[in-house]
Amino acid sequence: MAQNKKFVEAITSMNEDFARWYTDVVKKADLVEYSGVKGCMIIRPYGFALWELIQKELDRRFKETGHENVYMPMFIPESLLQKEKDHVEGFAPEVAWVTHGGSEQLAERLCVRPTSETLFCDHYKDIIQSYRDLPKLYNQWCSVVRWEKTTRPFLRSVEFLWQEGHTAHATPEEAQEETIRMLNVYSSFCEEVLAIPVIKGQKTEKEKFAGANATYTIESLMHDGKALQSGTSHNFGDGFAEAFGIQYLDKDNQLKYVHQTSWGMSTRIIGAIIMVHGDDSGLVLPPRIAPTQLIIVPVQQQVEGVLDKAYELKERLSKVCRVKVDDSDKMPGWKFSEHEMRGVPLRLEVGPKDIQKNQVVLVKRENREKLFVSMDELETRIPEILEEVQASLYNKALNMRNSKTFTAKTMDEMESILNETPGFIKAMWCGDEECENAIKEKMTATARCIPFEQENISDKCVCCEKEAKHMVYWGRAY
Amino acid sequence: MAQNKKFVEAITSMNEDFARWYTDVVKKADLVEYSGVKGCMIIRPYGFALWELIQKELDRRFKETGHENVYMPMFIPESLLQKEKDHVEGFAPEVAWVTHGGSEQLAERLCVRPTSETLFCDHYKDIIQSYRDLPKLYNQWCSVVRWEKTTRPFLRSVEFLWQEGHTAHATPEEAQEETIRMLNVYSSFCEEVLAIPVIKGQKTEKEKFAGANATYTIESLMHDGKALQSGTSHNFGDGFAEAFGIQYLDKDNQLKYVHQTSWGMSTRIIGAIIMVHGDDSGLVLPPRIAPTQLIIVPVQQQVEGVLDKAYELKERLSKVCRVKVDDSDKMPGWKFSEHEMRGVPLRLEVGPKDIQKNQVVLVKRENREKLFVSMDELETRIPEILEEVQASLYNKALNMRNSKTFTAKTMDEMESILNETPGFIKAMWCGDEECENAIKEKMTATARCIPFEQENISDKCVCCEKEAKHMVYWGRAY
Repeated sequence: MAQNKKFVEAITSMNEDFARWYTDVVKKADLVEYSGVKGCMIIRPYGFALWELIQKELDRRFKETGHENVYMPMFIPESLLQKEKDHVEGFAPEVAWVTHGGSEQLAERLCVRPTSETLFCDHYKDIIQSYRDLPKLYNQWCSVVRWEKTTRPFLRSVEFLWQEGHTAHATPEEAQEETIRMLNVYSSFCEEVLAIPVIKGQKTEKEKFAGANATYTIESLMHDGKALQSGTSHNFGDGFAEAFGIQYLDKDNQLKYVHQTSWGMSTRIIGAIIMVHGDDSGLVLPPRIAPTQLIIVPVQQQVEGVLDKAYELKERLSKVCRVKVDDSDKMPGWKFSEHEMRGVPLRLEVGPKDIQKNQVVLVKRENREKLFVSMDELETRIPEILEEVQASLYNKALNMRNSKTFTAKTMDEMESILNETPGFIKAMWCGDEECENAIKEKMTATARCIPFEQENISDKCVCCEKEAKHMVYWGRAY
Repeated sequence: MAQNKKFVEAITSMNEDFARWYTDVVKKADLVEYSGVKGCMIIRPYGFALWELIQKELDRRFKETGHENVYMPMFIPESLLQKEKDHVEGFAPEVAWVTHGGSEQLAERLCVRPTSETLFCDHYKDIIQSYRDLPKLYNQWCSVVRWEKTTRPFLRSVEFLWQEGHTAHATPEEAQEETIRMLNVYSSFCEEVLAIPVIKGQKTEKEKFAGANATYTIESLMHDGKALQSGTSHNFGDGFAEAFGIQYLDKDNQLKYVHQTSWGMSTRIIGAIIMVHGDDSGLVLPPRIAPTQLIIVPVQQQVEGVLDKAYELKERLSKVCRVKVDDSDKMPGWKFSEHEMRGVPLRLEVGPKDIQKNQVVLVKRENREKLFVSMDELETRIPEILEEVQASLYNKALNMRNSKTFTAKTMDEMESILNETPGFIKAMWCGDEECENAIKEKMTATARCIPFEQENISDKCVCCEKEAKHMVYWGRAY
């Protein structure tokens, strides 16, 4: 148990230093490793398995809603990036430029895609002619690059993995419907699969995507009271279509511009999983997204029959969950800590005495609750317990968020909340960017979103005290 | 049927101009579209669905053989690329260089990965300490960039998608075993899933991968008699380990270098599928890899009950195959051509008369054979027919290859075969690079591989007439 203790001591406690706790967890749970390229991370097998499960779940939902996957080039010619003026202003300062191919200088610089709106538009211009070609519902899984100075694994890195959906529609109504549909796909994915409750709403003009008419977002709250933008869905109207000349011949024989959307979710969401569910023993994974849902740890594995029983159980239980046996030559206590660190939702201990009693010990990662279960009932009990854990994690996360959500009627209230009990602050806003800027400057909090579910906190803007238009969620954000 | 005819006329015939036929097929079967970036292609939904099935099948085989997926950065610092001298010589002339991030010039240039040996080695150096850490069996799905001047969709492009496996082992024997294991995974995948027969063998010193001790390959033969390298597996020995300092403490307490392998298959293999199975009506897809295995075409769909029956059949048959209904308002003949162009293995026609007779018409894409099958037997018959088609395509491809495989004992024989009936040429070789160069220069044919299955064509080298060491497959290649 000495080893075990040492292993656990190596993590900083959350309350002591949340940022260090986060870094410790991503490293010690074997999710990522730093690379020799500044700001780029290596996603290790355990981290990538998590991403593969996220991809699988999201991809299924995209396909069920009629979307198809494609692959666009990773390079964007400078002239193409510049076609939509808001878009290029938003992205040009943070792109990587390829200037040479082999030993030759290129006639035109290429940027490594920071996002692919311009490429999709250029393609849509070629393949959309008639109303029969609409809608186009495309998605792409790829990596993108944004030249960030301050980086952190998953949360902000020079290169990251994501999916970007890009769609083209005949009418503004269809585009708006799609924008909200995909926001709902994200929110139900976060809540049902990742056990992360989210606030759905619209971004302010200041915070919207470069080139969009409207940006919608799902916002989640981390353990340290900071917000994390977890997925966004943009309605472009016909702005890009005009800039790129994407027109179709409608049923009425009129040439019309298409209406477009885009929406994305990235490896950032793994940061949210860590910071919403994790604790001082490491990662806590919701069962539906855990690469290993059940870890079997043989106790006194040198005793004859123990390892065989462990393998037999693994064989049986692999039909109902993602299960592994840890048959390494480490001490059981060490193994317990290691799999707790990696957030495996459920541990099954089986030793000589358990075999005699025809039972096993199950231990929940989330609260170390112990359950003694007959070996004959495992196939039914384990899936039930995993679902209980899933629901419990969601409820805990919701309670955590509720306990860190406040209302403020004045700037003073807002400031004291942010400094003393950081979290979401619901406060009224007149709709003027001046007030938004003032709040950002004074307390480094931004408008996270104008939530769909509005409440009336007061009649006056928290900043200027003029008539309020919206209730806004404010917060400091990752 | 006028439309239908026009549609088909738009493809160049294979015999008239094979290169144009190829380009016509990839475009008209909606596999790819050219992009605004020279040499980079857009993989369209139908092409990407093909790649997704390839990925799924290969990924399953990789995981069954113990491999784990990871993700490495897409950038390689210039100094890292230079660490292994053969490797940098092989790749530096054809990489894309990033010189600026945002508006700042980088202190060190980064190349966009042409392959990731150097990144994996740099990572292995950090994570491998002891024999307990071995083997490391990693794979990565990603895109890579090679600055090619002459490009063709799938076959050679500036950016392409692939998987690259990178493994580290304790002993030379284990590394060699892995190298051959993965070559076998590729060959069985090609033969069982893609219905493409392959020659397995070793590359000559001249043709091996930059930095490898030995490169193994699977070579397939296209309809025009040209060879296509379809997958490679490299044994690096400890060369990279020495260059990067990847050492482990063995059980005997000695510090030793690891032994490494790498292996890759790319979107190039889609080019092979097209050029092995395709015909003058377009693509022909082996059922096991076809995104749509069965297309249901309602005949006289305006007649009441026909579309309903088509949907009902789709619902039923979706349990046994990948099936779609084409309920567009095009003429049936047009639909037939379109799905033939897209290589859908089996077509189901159902009209009012068929419904009366409780039967359907099935038409095989490969030979237009018609089968009348009772509606009650579809669930059993369709999977059987798909498997028959799969086997038939393999046999046809094997016969095609056999009919285009020749033996030559002299340079004159070799040359006349290449000029008159291009294909694989089996000929003896002394093992000297001089002869290999002479053959390449004289007839632009390269040593495709030294096959594992050796034959004795003669005792003398086809070129210098000195004593022969190996039988080699020669050919012109993509």
